[in-house]
Amino acid sequence: MKLTFKVQAQSENPTKTVVKARNFEVIVDEPKNLGGTDEGANPVEYVLAALAGCLNVMSHVIAKEMNMPLTGVTIDLEGDLDPAKFMGKSTEARAGYQEIRVKITPDTTADSETLAKWLHAVETRCPVSDNLQNATPVSITLGE
Amino acid sequence: MKLTFKVQAQSENPTKTVVKARNFEVIVDEPKNLGGTDEGANPVEYVLAALAGCLNVMSHVIAKEMNMPLTGVTIDLEGDLDPAKFMGKSTEARAGYQEIRVKITPDTTADSETLAKWLHAVETRCPVSDNLQNATPVSITLGE
Repeated sequence: MKLTFKVQAQSENPTKTVVKARNFEVIVDEPKNLGGTDEGANPVEYVLAALAGCLNVMSHVIAKEMNMPLTGVTIDLEGDLDPAKFMGKSTEARAGYQEIRVKITPDTTADSETLAKWLHAVETRCPVSDNLQNATPVSITLGE
Repeated sequence: MKLTFKVQAQSENPTKTVVKARNFEVIVDEPKNLGGTDEGANPVEYVLAALAGCLNVMSHVIAKEMNMPLTGVTIDLEGDLDPAKFMGKSTEARAGYQEIRVKITPDTTADSETLAKWLHAVETRCPVSDNLQNATPVSITLGE
């Protein structure tokens, strides 16, 4: 089985992008200190938001499979990057996040052994976590 | 130089996540056919939105550096994934996108040689493209 997800994007200005995903509109921009018009979260913040949303879904899917009580999760995410490369400066540093740190706090009565098993499954079965942790082919071509 | 980006997320239900990124709120959910309450784009659609926003910024940054005229871009993105793994079925398939395809259509008078050079720089200097195309360490720990 294969699912295909599609979005369409249009630049509204050099930093603001309006993205349509089905019936939803997502506004991506940059903060003023990165030269943007600050009308939405920025691309790398959306990466963290995508990971958060995915981890929430997986947290509940796997808790249900394990019959583990779970009434909610709080997730804190952060990532570090060196802006040198996208700003065009000479650098050996990679363009994107060098590391992403995530702390998931589950609202549960489960014991620590159960939680360790749960967390491992959440991490390895989350599509967004997989796409970040492992190389994903991205082909970028020019339209007419 | 190192920039740290942070977001906080809270599950509102097993599929709906409310993410705070600075002063912005991002709603992530799943469509009804994936068991969700459909109040926002889903995690893997946000991955494409993040990539779109990043490519727009880089398109303009690099056009400016190259003195290439650019009045806007349209970007179409799609990705395929097999839902078997996150649904808990036995599978060899990876959890996330197997491939992401992007088509960037620039509004420009630049010639094809200039455009090829521009596209290469856009792709290699985009932080989100880097985080997808190359492995990114993600550490996931349990909060208290």
